[in-house]
Amino acid sequence: MEMKLTYRDAPIPSDAGTVEELLHQTGFFRGDEIAVAVELIEERLAKGVSSGYHFWFADRVGSSKCPVGYVCYGPIPCTLGSFDLYWIAVDAACQSRGLGRILAGLAERSAQRMKGRHMYVETSGRKQYEPTQAFYKAIGYTEAARLKDFYNTGDDKVIFQKNIGSGTHE
Amino acid sequence: MEMKLTYRDAPIPSDAGTVEELLHQTGFFRGDEIAVAVELIEERLAKGVSSGYHFWFADRVGSSKCPVGYVCYGPIPCTLGSFDLYWIAVDAACQSRGLGRILAGLAERSAQRMKGRHMYVETSGRKQYEPTQAFYKAIGYTEAARLKDFYNTGDDKVIFQKNIGSGTHE
Repeated sequence: MEMKLTYRDAPIPSDAGTVEELLHQTGFFRGDEIAVAVELIEERLAKGVSSGYHFWFADRVGSSKCPVGYVCYGPIPCTLGSFDLYWIAVDAACQSRGLGRILAGLAERSAQRMKGRHMYVETSGRKQYEPTQAFYKAIGYTEAARLKDFYNTGDDKVIFQKNIGSGTHE
Repeated sequence: MEMKLTYRDAPIPSDAGTVEELLHQTGFFRGDEIAVAVELIEERLAKGVSSGYHFWFADRVGSSKCPVGYVCYGPIPCTLGSFDLYWIAVDAACQSRGLGRILAGLAERSAQRMKGRHMYVETSGRKQYEPTQAFYKAIGYTEAARLKDFYNTGDDKVIFQKNIGSGTHE
């Protein structure tokens, strides 16, 4: 099945519900985690780019802006040039087509234009997240740190990092 | 000079201004960093403990609640039992008396009562922050991770960690 997609960086109110559904479907996130993802969209809708949350949404052409994947990223407060890739998710039916890589690339290039030097992304060290870790490694991220038992006992936090630019900051 | 102190965990509106002044005085923080510290107090005053920001303030006895030191900490969202020590600062005139250790200890014990397992604290790897790093080591923290050039080129983030309990979470 061929799928034509368009990409937009401005969230619209319906994205909160669509993304909530998308994240539930993946089976990777707890309810309290999904609530945080939805909050970031709402915060951006309320405060604009000054919220610090930036996005790219992938809409199916002709679907009236119902995204099948999205990425949320932004500058890390109190740093000069470090960005966090807060969320990235692709609808189960649309995976394995390189859409995650495209979304991450859009976020990295936008961050670069904002003088970004590093993109960071955090994930769980649990076995369930091995495909996630493999995905980040495949798109150029390396493990920068691991915090033992961070999320819960037996559930480490792994921090991946990618150099995205050399923007100087004074 | 002997100094009698009392400790309270509820912020009052005047703390925003007092803490701003306190942080300026130390000479360790940039304006944008201090703005974040003040925001956390305001967020707590507006939303109560549901803000996720908890405090201990050390007031000089008889000073009508004008703190000479404070600590801000809280549970890290999407973790079970991990806490961040967001801010800790002591008035320059009141340093070297063990007040930092007392404030950190109050935060750790309060976090423990909230089923905390780990307390994390982040600081800069720059030479200027060596006394800060020595302080955390002296009170039982160990270096858990280091992110190269995180804050800026040549300015690493160092993450210190202390085990504060074994509260189980299901």
